[in-house]
Amino acid sequence: MPTPYEYIESHRAEFDKELTSFLRIASVSADSKFKPQILEACDFVAKKMKSAGLKTEVIETEGNPLVYGEWLGAPGKPTILIYGHYDVQPPDPLDLWISGPFEPTVRDGNIYARGATDDKGQMYLHLNAIEAWIKTVGKLPINVKVLIEGEEEIGSVAIDRALPGLKDRLGCDAVVISDSSMFGPDQPAITYGLKGIFYFELFVDGPIRDLHSGTFGGSVKNPVNAIAEMLGKLVDAEGKVQVPGFYDDVVPLSELERGSIASLPFSDDEYKREMGVDQVFGEKGYSTLERRWARPTCDVNGIWGGYQGEGAKTVLPAKAGAKFSFRLVPDQDPAKIEAGVRAFIKSVTPPGIKVRLEHHHGAAAVVVPLDSAPVKGATRALAHAYGKQPVYIREGGSIPICSSFKKVLGVDSLMLGFGLNDDNTHSPNEKFCLKDYHRGALAIAHLFEELA
Amino acid sequence: MPTPYEYIESHRAEFDKELTSFLRIASVSADSKFKPQILEACDFVAKKMKSAGLKTEVIETEGNPLVYGEWLGAPGKPTILIYGHYDVQPPDPLDLWISGPFEPTVRDGNIYARGATDDKGQMYLHLNAIEAWIKTVGKLPINVKVLIEGEEEIGSVAIDRALPGLKDRLGCDAVVISDSSMFGPDQPAITYGLKGIFYFELFVDGPIRDLHSGTFGGSVKNPVNAIAEMLGKLVDAEGKVQVPGFYDDVVPLSELERGSIASLPFSDDEYKREMGVDQVFGEKGYSTLERRWARPTCDVNGIWGGYQGEGAKTVLPAKAGAKFSFRLVPDQDPAKIEAGVRAFIKSVTPPGIKVRLEHHHGAAAVVVPLDSAPVKGATRALAHAYGKQPVYIREGGSIPICSSFKKVLGVDSLMLGFGLNDDNTHSPNEKFCLKDYHRGALAIAHLFEELA
Repeated sequence: MPTPYEYIESHRAEFDKELTSFLRIASVSADSKFKPQILEACDFVAKKMKSAGLKTEVIETEGNPLVYGEWLGAPGKPTILIYGHYDVQPPDPLDLWISGPFEPTVRDGNIYARGATDDKGQMYLHLNAIEAWIKTVGKLPINVKVLIEGEEEIGSVAIDRALPGLKDRLGCDAVVISDSSMFGPDQPAITYGLKGIFYFELFVDGPIRDLHSGTFGGSVKNPVNAIAEMLGKLVDAEGKVQVPGFYDDVVPLSELERGSIASLPFSDDEYKREMGVDQVFGEKGYSTLERRWARPTCDVNGIWGGYQGEGAKTVLPAKAGAKFSFRLVPDQDPAKIEAGVRAFIKSVTPPGIKVRLEHHHGAAAVVVPLDSAPVKGATRALAHAYGKQPVYIREGGSIPICSSFKKVLGVDSLMLGFGLNDDNTHSPNEKFCLKDYHRGALAIAHLFEELA
Repeated sequence: MPTPYEYIESHRAEFDKELTSFLRIASVSADSKFKPQILEACDFVAKKMKSAGLKTEVIETEGNPLVYGEWLGAPGKPTILIYGHYDVQPPDPLDLWISGPFEPTVRDGNIYARGATDDKGQMYLHLNAIEAWIKTVGKLPINVKVLIEGEEEIGSVAIDRALPGLKDRLGCDAVVISDSSMFGPDQPAITYGLKGIFYFELFVDGPIRDLHSGTFGGSVKNPVNAIAEMLGKLVDAEGKVQVPGFYDDVVPLSELERGSIASLPFSDDEYKREMGVDQVFGEKGYSTLERRWARPTCDVNGIWGGYQGEGAKTVLPAKAGAKFSFRLVPDQDPAKIEAGVRAFIKSVTPPGIKVRLEHHHGAAAVVVPLDSAPVKGATRALAHAYGKQPVYIREGGSIPICSSFKKVLGVDSLMLGFGLNDDNTHSPNEKFCLKDYHRGALAIAHLFEELA
């Protein structure tokens, strides 16, 4: 009888094949025309859970369905809840992909496809670890619940609303999530902090119709000029967000944490080369890693208005729009931030212009204590799988559900990322290193044992 | 034997049918994929000129071809050069058209199609007037040359370069152009001033690839934030263009002209209703008509960057872009404006960003004297056709070739517009009033007689 670890080693080809099939499904949650693929991906996950040996159920919500599975045959042992998502970001801009976003392709040991690392590959390796234990030992050393959702990329709205009703069923000692990155190649990490988020969409209306910019220019406010003026005031030249009260509740970084971040091997020069920029940019007084991990930020994520085609069109457009979002840190309150942004937008709206501000989703930041049993177990499990001690990092990304798990279930989330910073998450040519896909499954298989 | 005027009255149906066929041709010059339609429209015009009785020739250029026709059988009489264009603006946004942009449709006495008023309908009525004289009287009372180009909507580059080589052939006493508007319904006008233009396209590059705005936000300058900041500084809250030196060469409006503009029936309240805005906007200290006709302006004509699809995508985009243009007045020099704008863009480019500024086209403003023989003749011709004295107006639009005609041929352009301000030029649902299409031909037929 092989061990679970041997099973994982000998089943790499099967695991890769399954992931490839999973990645072929264009389960984009942001665009409703991909609803059939959302359901197909949900079904794919349910089948895998069942075949891995979990008691599996698809739970309908007001949005995309959840897939839930459990194995509870270890009375007296801890219970963990593994969380992940089967939905992916939109693949735009399509013309920058080397191979199609939904035609998974392996190059240099990486599998390229939308969702490869975020979060299909990282989520699926947990199911591989469960399968390895049940198919070899016949059982798991701890109790495991798995909850996979289909709206993480659009703010986890449906799961968030369903969570209170599932409270008893989901009871656990810790949540485990793999939806983030290691510190670098071959350097495993435990992510102990995530930023929160507030995402807005702004609609700006000027004249009732597109106008000739020669005949009518200078007579009515141009909505594209207006939106540029408004968004141009969001952040100052020193990287400081200009929304009044924005920094009021920000918990300052402790000297201990600043020291710990400064001790990590990170070079601005190397980072600039990697990013292709001649200068880093951000809030004055903080290092690049501090700004990325632990300071709130504001980015315009998209903008449009007027003529975008070839050549010159002399139009004074009737409307313009933009998407912009804030990343939040403890203890910024999303509701307070929303109110502040609404007041700010009102204050910078020029005369002759109508604006409408919609919000897509919001979530608070989370930071978890490092001295807990799950963190200690995960530290040992990662060291087993990688032959190297993990480092403790924070992340600028948001997993909105973490703060809900804390609120509803009363437990912290253990974030074990197996991705890399150059995985092109949310960008063209997203990838996941297959070696980490396999080592990740090994680490999770060890985690079960360590937590027992 | 009918008179030319009777011929025009009795041939309305034929003229309408021909215009309809002409408008079916999608001769968009801004987008190279419409090149076959450009050539088809060129050919259509050449056929009409020939059948109207002109000696006709297609003149190749480095860009789209010119159509040239002449009738020079009136020695000792004045010679006019009629100028127009067979190319049209792009039809975007397509979804706002009630009937297709290239499916001409008559509603309430107006013909709806891209190019209906700008400039296919207004140009074609000249050919109808020529045809009316030659088919009835057998000759024209003056010498007439006709030059129709195919790049007016993209800056008249090819004709501008070809002009010096055609100088002897095009010699004339005045240029006549119908590519503007009347003052209002049933109120004919002679346009004695046009603005110039300088049109730019700005490309802003940040990081080498699209980034996850959570993981990387706060570490590199976001190009969409950057372009908003930059464009937001172009015009201040009081409508003043912020490019240093921009107003240096502007000829102030004379008290006489301000009085004349103020005497025209125009109401800001009615204008606001028509435009669907709650406030007019523009340079402080000038009336709406003054700003539209005689003060320089700046409009962003298009902007793009990041995610424009449905829902939320948390991306820090790699690039952004915009098109923006300035309308110029006497004596602003396009070359000086270009240099000023380049210096301004450089001065507002934030660190960590690369910019590239391209210029599409430039032209100086023109203002022609009102006391010339052609203007006097046109005044009488319009009064004949409309039964009402014309008013003298300026226009915010640009006809870049006017200043070239002045420079190369040494003659002023007589601008007799038959469009209306609500013709949706450069917008969806462009139209031309068929009554003015017919009255315009009558006015031009009278003009030939008045100039003789």
